[in-house]
Amino acid sequence: MSFSIADAAQQAKKAARQVANLNAEQKNQLLVDIAEALSVNTPSILAANEKDLAAGKENNLDAAMLDRLALDPSRIQGIADAVVEIAGQVDPVGNISSIQRMPSGIQVGKMRIPLGVIAMIYESRPNVTIDAAALCLKAGNAVILRGGKEALHSNLALAECIKSALAKHNIDPAAVVVIPDTDRAVMNELMTLNESIDLIIPRGGEGLIRFVSENSRIPVIQHFKGVCHLYIDSDADQVKGLNILKNGKTQRTGVCNSLETLVVHKDVAESFLPKAAAMLAEHNTVIHACENSIGYFSGAQAATVDDWHAEYLAMEIAVRVVDDFEQAIEHIEEYSSGHTEVIVSQDYSKTQEFIRRINSAVVMANASSRFSDGGQLGLGAEIGISTSKLHAYGPMGAESLTTEKFIVMGDGEVRS
Amino acid sequence: MSFSIADAAQQAKKAARQVANLNAEQKNQLLVDIAEALSVNTPSILAANEKDLAAGKENNLDAAMLDRLALDPSRIQGIADAVVEIAGQVDPVGNISSIQRMPSGIQVGKMRIPLGVIAMIYESRPNVTIDAAALCLKAGNAVILRGGKEALHSNLALAECIKSALAKHNIDPAAVVVIPDTDRAVMNELMTLNESIDLIIPRGGEGLIRFVSENSRIPVIQHFKGVCHLYIDSDADQVKGLNILKNGKTQRTGVCNSLETLVVHKDVAESFLPKAAAMLAEHNTVIHACENSIGYFSGAQAATVDDWHAEYLAMEIAVRVVDDFEQAIEHIEEYSSGHTEVIVSQDYSKTQEFIRRINSAVVMANASSRFSDGGQLGLGAEIGISTSKLHAYGPMGAESLTTEKFIVMGDGEVRS
Repeated sequence: MSFSIADAAQQAKKAARQVANLNAEQKNQLLVDIAEALSVNTPSILAANEKDLAAGKENNLDAAMLDRLALDPSRIQGIADAVVEIAGQVDPVGNISSIQRMPSGIQVGKMRIPLGVIAMIYESRPNVTIDAAALCLKAGNAVILRGGKEALHSNLALAECIKSALAKHNIDPAAVVVIPDTDRAVMNELMTLNESIDLIIPRGGEGLIRFVSENSRIPVIQHFKGVCHLYIDSDADQVKGLNILKNGKTQRTGVCNSLETLVVHKDVAESFLPKAAAMLAEHNTVIHACENSIGYFSGAQAATVDDWHAEYLAMEIAVRVVDDFEQAIEHIEEYSSGHTEVIVSQDYSKTQEFIRRINSAVVMANASSRFSDGGQLGLGAEIGISTSKLHAYGPMGAESLTTEKFIVMGDGEVRS
Repeated sequence: MSFSIADAAQQAKKAARQVANLNAEQKNQLLVDIAEALSVNTPSILAANEKDLAAGKENNLDAAMLDRLALDPSRIQGIADAVVEIAGQVDPVGNISSIQRMPSGIQVGKMRIPLGVIAMIYESRPNVTIDAAALCLKAGNAVILRGGKEALHSNLALAECIKSALAKHNIDPAAVVVIPDTDRAVMNELMTLNESIDLIIPRGGEGLIRFVSENSRIPVIQHFKGVCHLYIDSDADQVKGLNILKNGKTQRTGVCNSLETLVVHKDVAESFLPKAAAMLAEHNTVIHACENSIGYFSGAQAATVDDWHAEYLAMEIAVRVVDDFEQAIEHIEEYSSGHTEVIVSQDYSKTQEFIRRINSAVVMANASSRFSDGGQLGLGAEIGISTSKLHAYGPMGAESLTTEKFIVMGDGEVRS
């Protein structure tokens, strides 16, 4: 019998009602049991993963991709630990925000509730299967998971662990669907099921995200890229500035919260850029510099407009000197991807104005862009980072997988 | 020179930055000046409206449509008064929610910010032009307005009032675009401009909303229909129940918060339904009743599945008797449009459970569904009602036209 995504989505919608009604303790116990199933079933997960790895080698996947795909006992334990950590977080469902009494006499508040059914579309990392399922369940949602075909055996083995925990708690197995068919047609059909599915979160390369955004009839959380800016103001503490530059550019280059452009006020170019150049040279950083900064860097290339837009994801940075604070704001507004921007300044008013005026998802004063991450910002586990403003903006934790309804308590009032 | 929606949207995006940076007082003064311009320019607005009405009569628009289209001095004053009221509301932008200190030392909060550029697509009521512009500006957004072709002259005359107020405050006129071309091609192109426009709100018939939802690459706030349920529990105070039924069904039938289905617990069918039947008969209400309730109504038709789904928007109601509380929940979950549902019961636990379990946008205990409205729920003016859960759910006021960014205040912290 072939798999029908329309049927699975409809069953998930029904199961979502059951999951929405679990209380915090039931959901947390379910998560702990999923974690335990992962430990118990480590041998069968590894056996399935072996199949994927063997097929991957046969299909000449590159080393980085094979590494993302690979599981071992410690990675499985890490996945299980993350689920236990999610179980320990505050329940996002059921909170009521301040209830107000209206002139009519009715009392009006808002209660946080699950979204319903969430579909995740992702590429080769099998840990996403468990992370996403755990966060969606924590927020009271059903979830449909469509991973990459390279990881299918691993994902199905992980799904068995979830299924056994659902069964133990008498929860409809349709609450977590791991799509057993990685055919593109299934994904295309999934994106039309707006009667059953409330949200799609694509995780992976820009091509995947753009494809889903342009073809889905279901709302999509988009995360295109992170072109993060660091602005060193004329009133910067340069020691802080240099540390923040070093941390943001060199700690990890392949992540979206790493720095891509350094913007420097002209009054401190002469004092700051030589130190920046020396530090970046130590890390063999490729420099793309504007005409007013290129003289400070040996071997720098002249920056073009493409550099202001670039997400290098490499030991590579664009550098621009600006005339004043206003020009720094303009540069960032023009080229920002809406992810994370940082000002380094000791001037109170300028930090306040930067924070107020720059409308990226995360705006910082005197801190490293590397803090732009769900865990570091206090959200716990993260299901993605939104760079579009609707529904969620920035790192998304369990609360971003919920919404709020209005609740009204009356005593027989009618409208006059 | 012909109108280019792509250019207009790009200019609106630029203007949005300026509007986002206006403070509360500047925005409120702008709104007051728009209201004043409406009063001053009443003669020219009426002259433009005359043209639309004449064309409408020539094109055989029906009386209801001509009435929606028509302006007179008191309607214009009403529109102006609504703008002044919006000016008086609390500013939704700039609020910072509780700032927490993280283990790393950084302080993390969230600040409310405008969405950017909002497009409204609506039908014949010219008041929407001003209401929508005022709410979008209040929330710090630029706005693109595309009204129906029947109201084009009126809308352009209203736009002049906005333009004069923007000019007085030196605000980029691109902040409010009234599209001067009601060609379908312009709307189709608008829906592709996801680089410039952040949100589309269609207001009008189901056909319009469905068309926009299925064709837009920009997120859409959907409001399909309101199939509102009233459940009379076995522990209901029947006087309250009857008042709430009367208010919900008979006060205004053409609105989405009117009642469409009455669900009654079997234990009180015999005591409640005769009173309900008498009251509904006084209002000449057409009844579609289930087999267990049809005997209480003279001249009732047998209800079909279509009746459970129906939004009558008329003096017409579906009636169902259920065996118990659980079956009432099931019926509502199955047929709800996600708008508004009401329980009437004196039993504390059942009201709490109803409010917790029914995940419609507005859930009420012992109050009339007619309160499901932005003004009545304390939001002030309303830009629409969302029956989809993403971003906004239920009546939307100015705050629904904003989002939140993360703000981080550090003192040189870097990530370890």
